Amino acid sequence: MATKEKRNVIVGQSGGPTAAINSSLAGVYRTAKDRGYKKVYGMIHGVQGLMEGRYIDLADHIKTGLDAELLKRTPSAYLGSCRYKLPEIFESKETYEKIFQILTDLEIDCFIYIGGNDSMDTIKKLSDYAIISGSAVRFVGCPKTIDNDLALTDHTPGYGSAAKYIGTSVKEIIRDGWSLETEHGQVVIVEIMGRNAGWLTGSAALSRGEDCDGPDAIYLPELPFDVKKFVEKVKKLLKEKANVVIAISEGIHDKDGKYISEYDNGVEYIDAFGHKQLTGTARYLCTVLSTEIGCKTRAIELSTLQRAASHCASRVDILEAYEVGGAAMKAADEGDSGKMVVIERLSDDPYQAGTEVKDVHKIANDERLVPREWINKEGTYVTDEFITYVRPLIQGDVGPIMVDGIPRHLFVPGFQELL
Amino acid sequence: MATKEKRNVIVGQSGGPTAAINSSLAGVYRTAKDRGYKKVYGMIHGVQGLMEGRYIDLADHIKTGLDAELLKRTPSAYLGSCRYKLPEIFESKETYEKIFQILTDLEIDCFIYIGGNDSMDTIKKLSDYAIISGSAVRFVGCPKTIDNDLALTDHTPGYGSAAKYIGTSVKEIIRDGWSLETEHGQVVIVEIMGRNAGWLTGSAALSRGEDCDGPDAIYLPELPFDVKKFVEKVKKLLKEKANVVIAISEGIHDKDGKYISEYDNGVEYIDAFGHKQLTGTARYLCTVLSTEIGCKTRAIELSTLQRAASHCASRVDILEAYEVGGAAMKAADEGDSGKMVVIERLSDDPYQAGTEVKDVHKIANDERLVPREWINKEGTYVTDEFITYVRPLIQGDVGPIMVDGIPRHLFVPGFQELL
Repeated sequence: MATKEKRNVIVGQSGGPTAAINSSLAGVYRTAKDRGYKKVYGMIHGVQGLMEGRYIDLADHIKTGLDAELLKRTPSAYLGSCRYKLPEIFESKETYEKIFQILTDLEIDCFIYIGGNDSMDTIKKLSDYAIISGSAVRFVGCPKTIDNDLALTDHTPGYGSAAKYIGTSVKEIIRDGWSLETEHGQVVIVEIMGRNAGWLTGSAALSRGEDCDGPDAIYLPELPFDVKKFVEKVKKLLKEKANVVIAISEGIHDKDGKYISEYDNGVEYIDAFGHKQLTGTARYLCTVLSTEIGCKTRAIELSTLQRAASHCASRVDILEAYEVGGAAMKAADEGDSGKMVVIERLSDDPYQAGTEVKDVHKIANDERLVPREWINKEGTYVTDEFITYVRPLIQGDVGPIMVDGIPRHLFVPGFQELL
Repeated sequence: MATKEKRNVIVGQSGGPTAAINSSLAGVYRTAKDRGYKKVYGMIHGVQGLMEGRYIDLADHIKTGLDAELLKRTPSAYLGSCRYKLPEIFESKETYEKIFQILTDLEIDCFIYIGGNDSMDTIKKLSDYAIISGSAVRFVGCPKTIDNDLALTDHTPGYGSAAKYIGTSVKEIIRDGWSLETEHGQVVIVEIMGRNAGWLTGSAALSRGEDCDGPDAIYLPELPFDVKKFVEKVKKLLKEKANVVIAISEGIHDKDGKYISEYDNGVEYIDAFGHKQLTGTARYLCTVLSTEIGCKTRAIELSTLQRAASHCASRVDILEAYEVGGAAMKAADEGDSGKMVVIERLSDDPYQAGTEVKDVHKIANDERLVPREWINKEGTYVTDEFITYVRPLIQGDVGPIMVDGIPRHLFVPGFQELL
């Protein structure tokens, strides 16, 4: 039986960057080459850049095995990312015609998009349009988000490395607090990313072990936050110990849905998906505590460090991201479209997991939150079940390739100017 | 010739914690034991705790070689620290009588204090009092501060690890910025510790290399900061590139000496030495930029992470800290008092350095700043000479001892309660 000659592949990255998204890119590239595709194009700044004709040939970037290893260890979206939301097909047929014309011109067989919920929405719409328009291009999504909030998959690549960094940093922050005595006690509030899902904030509990008590309280955005109860809780903690460390999600909000950061009249930034960029929650709560209790306070925002800390990446995470990239390419090569690769966990300890392919229509725009039963009754900590879930995902290290005392990242001269 | 039988040693930690201060503690302990001292006591919370009779026997904590390795990798002052300033001898003879009575009771021969400028002030006063009172106890200081602002020493243990963390994190922050495009550009301001000395802030330039341009501007506290000129500089940078990253010291101030953080009417905390705790400088400047330019901004404070990040420690730093601890103990054992160990650099590349002993009277309360000629003319970057100076200090890694995916620290059950 004659098989049709394989042509080209295009891959893009979308949404917030992570420490693992480039490992998935390396996985897509390797598998596409292994399966006989000619060119592997990379969209610059995702589908938004593609529409402006911005793309590269990845062969100019991944020339050696060392390049691939560097790419796996490079944080942030190598190709540049975007937060562009495709219009509905009925709203703007022209948008789709434009994209598909570019794919035709580039002789694309497979379109792989590495991203989170919003990116899977893109895969869904493009694969729907392919059906309507009779295009043979296959569209497959490769999951990625530090937020770990994608439906149907056990977890998402990028989460494990962020969780490892958070667990490690919170442990160091706690230890730092042991150092100095303060007259009225000290409260450190660590603000962690996660608008609606508490997966990242909960991972602060990974700092707990034989040598560390972990944070004294953890507040996830899944439950309403009550400032008065919080102050009472801190007062109680300060009676027991001089140094209190509390982890909070940037997205904690009151029972009416108002973000605690909005109490502070902070400046808001709203992205194309209508998401508010939150900031200053810890700072606001520190002001409340120093006013109400008189204790010394310190607000620490882990900020973009938590999503970019390749120097503290999890080996399980980086290898799974690579595997999932390969699996997405494999699925597209074998004819799947409108699908996303998911990770299925077979066992916790020893940890075993594999990949499967699921219909992207069941995934897009559906946020997976921390289950209520994985948060304690009082709403101030995660349970042991949460830890059992996340612990395997932070195992092992990926030694950075050090040059002159600093981790080296993949860089091709002149590429940055294209971004 | 009959030598007097050796009795006991006491060691304390003082000032802000670092990732290397416990390696010096391990060095003091090892050398004291090697040189035949009976007990090595550790002051809990430095001389302040000692005066309340708080101390431990370090043999209960460092029982095995593995314990010593864990201690070297444990951030923050293991024994607890203090910011206690001893009164002048003529102001309160009772304070000194009390301390020396405790030293007599504990049969102390050598008193080692690991710390920065304020701690060397303590060594100076205690050694002076020993002379006045005819005490035979020897007092030797062991340098430690991430600020790197001690006089007479080439650099201080703790600085190299903090510099390595800052260089690594700033590089990851810069790369993270490449990911997303924003309409009016984005400016990230990274706020770094260092009240008067810019050694830490300057180390942000370590991120610069073949694969990274480094921050676009660096502002040290050595030179007056002009908000208007800063805004003009950023405007110019934004014309050249979409993502701008700027490193600033928490201690930048205007030509009249007013801290930029004070422009924001931020809450101030003043410690026992009259030092203001600064915060919010980056945040304030972000507000200025978004108001004046309309760009997207993000303020990132490296906060206590930069002094506690043992997971990213420099091998040169940790080994030198150990060596300096040993050298302080050796000096005291051999009869030195009122001295501090310093590091003398013999060559930059290959890096070679050794220890010497200097008079603490020449060191205490004298801040060593970044020389003017190591800052560019415009006052917006460090020179290559600065990089040549700091580069050797961040070389090599200290692999954390990982347990369950998280670095393990030294911990003795029940000890935390003593702190």
